[in-house]
Amino acid sequence: MKVADVSLTSFFAPRSIAFIGASDDARRIGGRPLAYCIRDGFAGPLYPINPSRDRVQGLTAYPSLDALPGPADLAVIAIGAAGVPDAVAAAARQGVRAAVVLSSGFAEVGEDALQAEMIAAARDGGIRVLGPNSLGVFSNEGGVCATFSSLLENGPVAAGKLAIVSQSGAYGAHLAMLMQRRGVGIARFVTTGNEADVTVADCILHMAGDPAVSVIGCYSEGIADGRAFLRAVEAARAAGKPVVMLKVGRSDTGRQAAASHTASLAGDDAVFDAVVRAAGVERVETTQQFVDLLYTLCRRPPVSGNRLGILTVSGGAGVLMADAASAAGFELPFMPQAAQAALKRRIPFGSAVNPVDTTAQAMNDPTLMRDAAAAMLNHGGYDAVVCFFMNWPDSPIIGPGLREALEAALVDHTDRTVAIAMNATEETRRSFDAAGLLVFEDPSHAVAALGASRRLGEALARDAVTQPDLPRPDPLPSGPFDEFEAATLLAEGGVTMAPIVEGETPEAIAAAAQTLSGPIALKIRSRDLPHKSDVGGVRLGLLGEEAIRSEAQRMHQVVSGAAPDATLRGFVASPMAAPGVELLIGGRVDPSFGPIVTVGLGGVFTEIFRDVAIGLAPLTSTEAEALLRSLRGWPLLAGARGRAVADVDAAADAIESLSRFVARHREVIEAVEINPLVVHPKGQGAAGLDAVIMVRTDVPSGN
Amino acid sequence: MKVADVSLTSFFAPRSIAFIGASDDARRIGGRPLAYCIRDGFAGPLYPINPSRDRVQGLTAYPSLDALPGPADLAVIAIGAAGVPDAVAAAARQGVRAAVVLSSGFAEVGEDALQAEMIAAARDGGIRVLGPNSLGVFSNEGGVCATFSSLLENGPVAAGKLAIVSQSGAYGAHLAMLMQRRGVGIARFVTTGNEADVTVADCILHMAGDPAVSVIGCYSEGIADGRAFLRAVEAARAAGKPVVMLKVGRSDTGRQAAASHTASLAGDDAVFDAVVRAAGVERVETTQQFVDLLYTLCRRPPVSGNRLGILTVSGGAGVLMADAASAAGFELPFMPQAAQAALKRRIPFGSAVNPVDTTAQAMNDPTLMRDAAAAMLNHGGYDAVVCFFMNWPDSPIIGPGLREALEAALVDHTDRTVAIAMNATEETRRSFDAAGLLVFEDPSHAVAALGASRRLGEALARDAVTQPDLPRPDPLPSGPFDEFEAATLLAEGGVTMAPIVEGETPEAIAAAAQTLSGPIALKIRSRDLPHKSDVGGVRLGLLGEEAIRSEAQRMHQVVSGAAPDATLRGFVASPMAAPGVELLIGGRVDPSFGPIVTVGLGGVFTEIFRDVAIGLAPLTSTEAEALLRSLRGWPLLAGARGRAVADVDAAADAIESLSRFVARHREVIEAVEINPLVVHPKGQGAAGLDAVIMVRTDVPSGN
Repeated sequence: MKVADVSLTSFFAPRSIAFIGASDDARRIGGRPLAYCIRDGFAGPLYPINPSRDRVQGLTAYPSLDALPGPADLAVIAIGAAGVPDAVAAAARQGVRAAVVLSSGFAEVGEDALQAEMIAAARDGGIRVLGPNSLGVFSNEGGVCATFSSLLENGPVAAGKLAIVSQSGAYGAHLAMLMQRRGVGIARFVTTGNEADVTVADCILHMAGDPAVSVIGCYSEGIADGRAFLRAVEAARAAGKPVVMLKVGRSDTGRQAAASHTASLAGDDAVFDAVVRAAGVERVETTQQFVDLLYTLCRRPPVSGNRLGILTVSGGAGVLMADAASAAGFELPFMPQAAQAALKRRIPFGSAVNPVDTTAQAMNDPTLMRDAAAAMLNHGGYDAVVCFFMNWPDSPIIGPGLREALEAALVDHTDRTVAIAMNATEETRRSFDAAGLLVFEDPSHAVAALGASRRLGEALARDAVTQPDLPRPDPLPSGPFDEFEAATLLAEGGVTMAPIVEGETPEAIAAAAQTLSGPIALKIRSRDLPHKSDVGGVRLGLLGEEAIRSEAQRMHQVVSGAAPDATLRGFVASPMAAPGVELLIGGRVDPSFGPIVTVGLGGVFTEIFRDVAIGLAPLTSTEAEALLRSLRGWPLLAGARGRAVADVDAAADAIESLSRFVARHREVIEAVEINPLVVHPKGQGAAGLDAVIMVRTDVPSGN
Repeated sequence: MKVADVSLTSFFAPRSIAFIGASDDARRIGGRPLAYCIRDGFAGPLYPINPSRDRVQGLTAYPSLDALPGPADLAVIAIGAAGVPDAVAAAARQGVRAAVVLSSGFAEVGEDALQAEMIAAARDGGIRVLGPNSLGVFSNEGGVCATFSSLLENGPVAAGKLAIVSQSGAYGAHLAMLMQRRGVGIARFVTTGNEADVTVADCILHMAGDPAVSVIGCYSEGIADGRAFLRAVEAARAAGKPVVMLKVGRSDTGRQAAASHTASLAGDDAVFDAVVRAAGVERVETTQQFVDLLYTLCRRPPVSGNRLGILTVSGGAGVLMADAASAAGFELPFMPQAAQAALKRRIPFGSAVNPVDTTAQAMNDPTLMRDAAAAMLNHGGYDAVVCFFMNWPDSPIIGPGLREALEAALVDHTDRTVAIAMNATEETRRSFDAAGLLVFEDPSHAVAALGASRRLGEALARDAVTQPDLPRPDPLPSGPFDEFEAATLLAEGGVTMAPIVEGETPEAIAAAAQTLSGPIALKIRSRDLPHKSDVGGVRLGLLGEEAIRSEAQRMHQVVSGAAPDATLRGFVASPMAAPGVELLIGGRVDPSFGPIVTVGLGGVFTEIFRDVAIGLAPLTSTEAEALLRSLRGWPLLAGARGRAVADVDAAADAIESLSRFVARHREVIEAVEINPLVVHPKGQGAAGLDAVIMVRTDVPSGN
């Protein structure tokens, strides 16, 4: 449906811009974009459109688009919602290739029909739309200011290599302003609003190929097309551009808040979290983390390893940072012996190991911290060094020497990062920052940002992980399915299920069960009884044809009495399972990411400890094994506490087959669950004992 | 050993101060305290002591303490470490009651003997010592500046009701400076350094009774006497003074860093965390959290309930704050219908529910946010309201009206708190702050601080929990103990253990086992075989005297062959356990908090999921049940997934008895573990199946 193959270049680098609803008042929403474009020196023609004025903000105004003296690449629309569909259609007729719709009053307030009308006009005319309900787009190169954001209201924005891509207009602008305040220049700023056409994913994909952009910061409340989002972030990753994501709506409360104010369709946050992190995106929880990390990435290359050095003037801060380093996955290797010995002579009351603690003694000897810092960079072999300097950088005696020494040491180590936590004036902070040193206030935040930078560095360095294509959709026979049908369908789909036989009568099931070896489990067969044991519909450990027959007869009576409304379809029988580790493996269709699989140890591990791993379907058995290994309970499969090592290969094969089943039948399936999948000791396989397939009720199924 | 009954008044309110090692140079460590006292107008006599000068910093100097014209309450010692013991002794002789030892070079660099000598002199003379290696003490009332901290170097510190109590000098000063920068006045500042005498706990106890102090912020790396610390924080709690704690050394790495630079003895951080939180202390992880929360507590009373209102000009920020509110345990009740309807008329494109989202529309109508804020306070019934206003408070059109409206609304709601996240100038921030509104930068941090304030409010409101006194220490018979002895000792101590019999020979154990009913478990008896099953020393489900005898004979041969060095002491037998939920309950003696108990579900729940609760021993069965209820796995005891409800009363009784056992024998025991304690269905009791008692090897035991 989307015209996704048309590039977004006309938004970010238009040759000319028309302003529909241009106001002469530069403070109004309709006046701001034009005023900003004039101020920032947009190089091409600017066409204010206003039927009631000859001139707007000093430029010739035009009564309508068809009166323009030349073509307009981009239209900025700031008129009442009701007029927008016509304006979009008119723009398309005049050859406009892209429209920014600043107007509100569409799906976000329930006016879905008006939004649909507008987007239909855009598609008919082959024009891309940003919005509606967008704060617009800003491209620093060339002064493209198709936005009324207050980001631009205090003068031109400093240039840089950061792109801010935000669904929310106001919060996106807030984030961009915080980056500005942190001294980080901005190349691109775009807010997608209702995403009737252009999405956050589209913008990230654009940034992946935009040479002006090196780092991408993204805010979103919900991703409608998760797979498109993953393709976009993979393009960014492959282009060496880290993506930092503030995705809100983590909690139920948050998702309710999101639903009440936007038209965005949020999938399950746990699914988002798992697959987006697996794709190499760094997801942050707070605004502070977002700003700290983008600042770090825009200033230095990603931290290249997990060896962290700590330099401090306070032992207490050293311990605090060591705690933070541990949480961030850093190691704190000691300084080499010779370097330690040399330093220790200088700081008899301090520590020269790591953390290196100069103590307050450094106050009396300004060369001390300088030399310690240089020693750590030159001899410590640390990938990053984090320092705590209190308010000393403000000291005219200590500050400048320290800054110069660190700057000089960094010259020989362009791949290293030095971060400094300090409580200092803005001027001092800027001077350290200008020397290539990262400046933070909170030492824990500094360490956390370095840790996140390292994770992103690892993600950028790894080989591409291309998503497997989704198979051609395949319908299923008409549901709903009882247990026997579900097990049979899954077995046909390649999942190893325990043998199962069925029989309509006690005699039939008793006879059928003779094909199974050993004692069997007998169950009533019905689509209407999800909890069969509650109504006496399960009996374990039966041996011999007569025992099975008589028990089946009795079971039918008991269940008929306990559940008179259920339609009983006979019986099923399976051999009793040999012991093993029980997994719960399932699949479902996420509204954002489509078919997914979830794996966990069954029972309380899943229900209470929420120890579940999630992956996109279909996946390979190698990927399935990686999911199993990511479980906290993995040691149970790996042979913890004297247990046998489980047949992980067989479990992974079952998960792979399940994932293909879910992917193939994604248009009819709501959820599939195999509980338990019993994983026997290594070499002895794995088998699903019980299965449920739930089909969607909103689509017709059947062959 | 400690002279803990002597008050600390002479540190915080001395009538006169002597400065031993007073320097005429006000920038040096020996000169700063005197200079600060002069500047801040200390009301009593100041006595610089310097044998080589007549005058120091304009005051008459004295060659030694015995030359003083009057008594000195407090001595500030800033001389080389070697001279400190004599100086302390001399001070004591002259009637000085308290000494601040700023000098370093004691236990923190391995000079334990010198520190011991100094502290012996202090005890002999009945004088309290702060330090050594302390940055000193500052009492704002009366200008007591017995410190060289740079906290004081930019002029007098603004008065307030906050006390900062810090083990670390430098980090304590950093924290105090951050509070200052946040506009929070400071009443007391004290750093305890090596804590040779006065500890962080002593200082908190002092603050509990100090009328100038209402809020206490504490930094520590390790608490040597955990029980004294708990008594101090309970005194503060009972006095209505919240305690916020930044305790570092959470991680192994952090504890190593702490050990390498201080003389502090850190107990297990998990124990600290559990018992200190249970005592109503709010433990924070980062400096930012510390500052945010103390700021909140110094400005407003603790948040009185969990009803949070959210007001935002950005829907995105609303979702973000809703996530943070969920994490902080807040509820977001809707606005009442009438108030919603009135608001919704004003903001057709926004939301009037909760979050209330005025959208950018508020930019065009300055009265809108003002009225929305007032409506939330007057009609919403929220205990706290958190707002996101972007950079709008800086706007001369919007800012002042908004501030005044919120200030006016708060007049009628002195028990409510309004926090505002904004990106604004220092001047704007201060003006909102001065109006009684809390000002933050990061909206997530604002919500987190409100949540912590609420938890502290709950802690302050609850009844006192007095620690049970430790019983009189009781020795044990000589260890080590084998399984039979351990089970017998615990059973004598009141813990319900499964029946166990012993026998030296196969015949004896076979005969003894006839007193047990049903099949039995047979084990080899030895102190040398902790893992008996590994050497063939366990056999389950034996029935009948002859079967037991012959199996015991075989077992003796097998074990003798597998573990030829182990001394075999015969056999033990127990009945096979009826099914139930297995707990692991244990006790040990924490270096800081003394006897403690830990409870968890056994096996992987404890080992992999670390689902363990910790309490001080001895505890009551009610407290034991509370520990069980705090486990994530509690549903397993409460009857989850169709299980029987377990006999929690019996389990709690067993834990109580174990806790008394550990407390009574704390001087000889290192650890006790009952694994498993099988908890049978309700009414059927609980019994320990296996027990280990480890005794200390460094103390003699025995009757």
